[in-house]
Amino acid sequence: MRKVIVQKFGGTSVADTEKIKNVAKTVIREKENGNDVVVVVSAMGHTTDYLVKMAKDLSPNPSEREMDMLLSTGEGVSIALLAMAIQAQGYDAISYNAMQVGIITENIHSKARIIDIKTDKLKQNLKEGKIIVVAGFQGVTEDGEITTLGRGGSDTSAVALAAALNAERCDIYTDVEGVYTTDPRVVKNASRLDEISYEEMLELAHAGANVLHPRSVEIAKQCNLPLRVRSRFKLDNLGTLMLGVDKMEINKPVAGVAADLSQARIVVCDVPDKPGVAAKLFSKLAKEKISVDMIIQSYARKVSNTNDIAFTVDASDLNKTVQALELLKAEIGAQGDIQVDENIAKVSIVGAGMIDRPGVASSMFETLADNNINIRMISTSEIKISCLVDKNQAETAVKALHEAFELAGDEIADVKGDLPNV
Amino acid sequence: MRKVIVQKFGGTSVADTEKIKNVAKTVIREKENGNDVVVVVSAMGHTTDYLVKMAKDLSPNPSEREMDMLLSTGEGVSIALLAMAIQAQGYDAISYNAMQVGIITENIHSKARIIDIKTDKLKQNLKEGKIIVVAGFQGVTEDGEITTLGRGGSDTSAVALAAALNAERCDIYTDVEGVYTTDPRVVKNASRLDEISYEEMLELAHAGANVLHPRSVEIAKQCNLPLRVRSRFKLDNLGTLMLGVDKMEINKPVAGVAADLSQARIVVCDVPDKPGVAAKLFSKLAKEKISVDMIIQSYARKVSNTNDIAFTVDASDLNKTVQALELLKAEIGAQGDIQVDENIAKVSIVGAGMIDRPGVASSMFETLADNNINIRMISTSEIKISCLVDKNQAETAVKALHEAFELAGDEIADVKGDLPNV
Repeated sequence: MRKVIVQKFGGTSVADTEKIKNVAKTVIREKENGNDVVVVVSAMGHTTDYLVKMAKDLSPNPSEREMDMLLSTGEGVSIALLAMAIQAQGYDAISYNAMQVGIITENIHSKARIIDIKTDKLKQNLKEGKIIVVAGFQGVTEDGEITTLGRGGSDTSAVALAAALNAERCDIYTDVEGVYTTDPRVVKNASRLDEISYEEMLELAHAGANVLHPRSVEIAKQCNLPLRVRSRFKLDNLGTLMLGVDKMEINKPVAGVAADLSQARIVVCDVPDKPGVAAKLFSKLAKEKISVDMIIQSYARKVSNTNDIAFTVDASDLNKTVQALELLKAEIGAQGDIQVDENIAKVSIVGAGMIDRPGVASSMFETLADNNINIRMISTSEIKISCLVDKNQAETAVKALHEAFELAGDEIADVKGDLPNV
Repeated sequence: MRKVIVQKFGGTSVADTEKIKNVAKTVIREKENGNDVVVVVSAMGHTTDYLVKMAKDLSPNPSEREMDMLLSTGEGVSIALLAMAIQAQGYDAISYNAMQVGIITENIHSKARIIDIKTDKLKQNLKEGKIIVVAGFQGVTEDGEITTLGRGGSDTSAVALAAALNAERCDIYTDVEGVYTTDPRVVKNASRLDEISYEEMLELAHAGANVLHPRSVEIAKQCNLPLRVRSRFKLDNLGTLMLGVDKMEINKPVAGVAADLSQARIVVCDVPDKPGVAAKLFSKLAKEKISVDMIIQSYARKVSNTNDIAFTVDASDLNKTVQALELLKAEIGAQGDIQVDENIAKVSIVGAGMIDRPGVASSMFETLADNNINIRMISTSEIKISCLVDKNQAETAVKALHEAFELAGDEIADVKGDLPNV
């Protein structure tokens, strides 16, 4: 029984016909390894920007349905061209858009979720020896409406296809060599991880690391599908493999360090200490589609019987959040100010290895203290500890933690383009 | 019951976002007339050239299936943008590609014929007051393979949709004002025809007139669908209406004059005068996919019992034809040369009015004789007479015939772009 490998190439990998020829070579290399190959591609380079610009010329607020119709043409071009490039090398190839495959999604435009993928035709084509090229980022509803999957959509397409086809592995080809212990632009001797667990990858994504979109990692985790991030330039380098924590040999408590500089902190002061207040506050923010990250509620003050509720949001949601809170203040009986601080950064350490190793948290706090970094808020999960610090101290914090948890590698990372780093 | 009008706009009409806004206005104008509107559009301006260039970069001979996948993205862009432009003017619009509509074709790539169009969804949308924008030039097979319709494909899409929807009329918007009595670039006072029959239009197309593709006229004729060629610039000008000859009031024997300069004449000399020779010759050419136009067989010579077979082919097929004939000469027992003449033009007069008016042919021959134009071959149909003349006399012939049959108008035609003239 031949194994199925799903490969994914993003927009920069197929930005022009020369690059498409290179992708064809990488695809054929995998086919020559004796595997069945399904390739998922995004739209060429700046196609999407170009299409969006034309749409904005025509309408200040184009309908999401028509935007999906428009944007889905981008992958239509790249799949046909890649199939031709593979054929030109003497291999049998066939391209399909999402409608032809049957990548069925919810009936929601611009950010639909995949609910089913039809595989009969694909399996038949693989049996016939064909290399299959599938359009990423797009889907179709049961009613034949074209949808798109939103940010990280092509990664999601690739992982979902790999899961549906019971693939051996899904390889995400990128401009970098894999996932790093931290941002190599900040820490020169950041090292590439050979392996990382889905859970660590998810925590790192939510901790602000510039990685794969969490949705694709979540799907891989659900299906226990090995997922590899690797370089499209250095094919002998196997990059970083994501897999179940049960399959990993864990040597170190911490896998990586990440900093998120895009958050803002809000404190609602002197809120009555009675049941239902926090619920009211955060359900209001949820209604406004504001995502809240860290939340801390202080102990109630004995005298006033009030407490403070502090939390962080994405800085771009700050104004919207403050407006919503001002309207809510009277209703929840908050007597104090609403304090805002944008001068913060969230620094996180992530590692499945910290689960049964006590003392990781205290090591983190000590390391920050040794570097005169004040901790403003703390939150923890099973495999992550995050500390809010002053923004101008974030870099120092990342470097110190990277060293303290012995994450440095021997080589200087080769950094180009966007980094799927930790 | 509201009437359905199908409109078609070609690539130059939607070449940029400003032009798409103008198309939206023309569409809305028809909607405001109280009609239901379905619009068929081609790919934007030079999109197709751009896509073909990339394909050629990748493969000297790209597969037709993948070319159809690639080219069909062109209309995917224009339909979405036009729908947005209509929506921006406050009207409800929805775009569909051929797969979504169900424009079912034969399973042949690059020149498929439409065999069925699903209309349930479209009728429902029209009932809801929506303006529907449909991708021209493309179709889909029963198996979900994307096809294209070949030359004149978007015209064919529009006419076939109009027929399927029982439309009141199909309007083909172009850069010119309608169909002319002859090429206005040759004859300055050529006049625009208010009406022309399907049959005349078909004969003119085959006579080398630069008109609508015959396939779209044939479908309109079969369904007795009124088909209008009109200006996208002058909306008050109704252009030329094609309709059944039974519905026309015919005043003149001749509707138009056309010249075809792209033919070549071939004479196969001294062919045995016995049954089956011509059949062998022309079935050989048919097998080579060479279209033959005029055919003349001379009376047999008494002495040798041979005759000459003369015919015309498109000049681009000349070499292929001569090669095929050289191989065939021995088999059919031809003893003479194969003579070739590219210095010819076919001049035709066309008119449903010549059917019951004797003397039209002799008037044509007299007019040519009066102008010292030698006739090299003649062929006739019910409503057309074609004469082969020397190429350098074609213009004189067209002008003389246009005058002799009183086709001149009062105005000088406003000539821009390609001409759907007679």
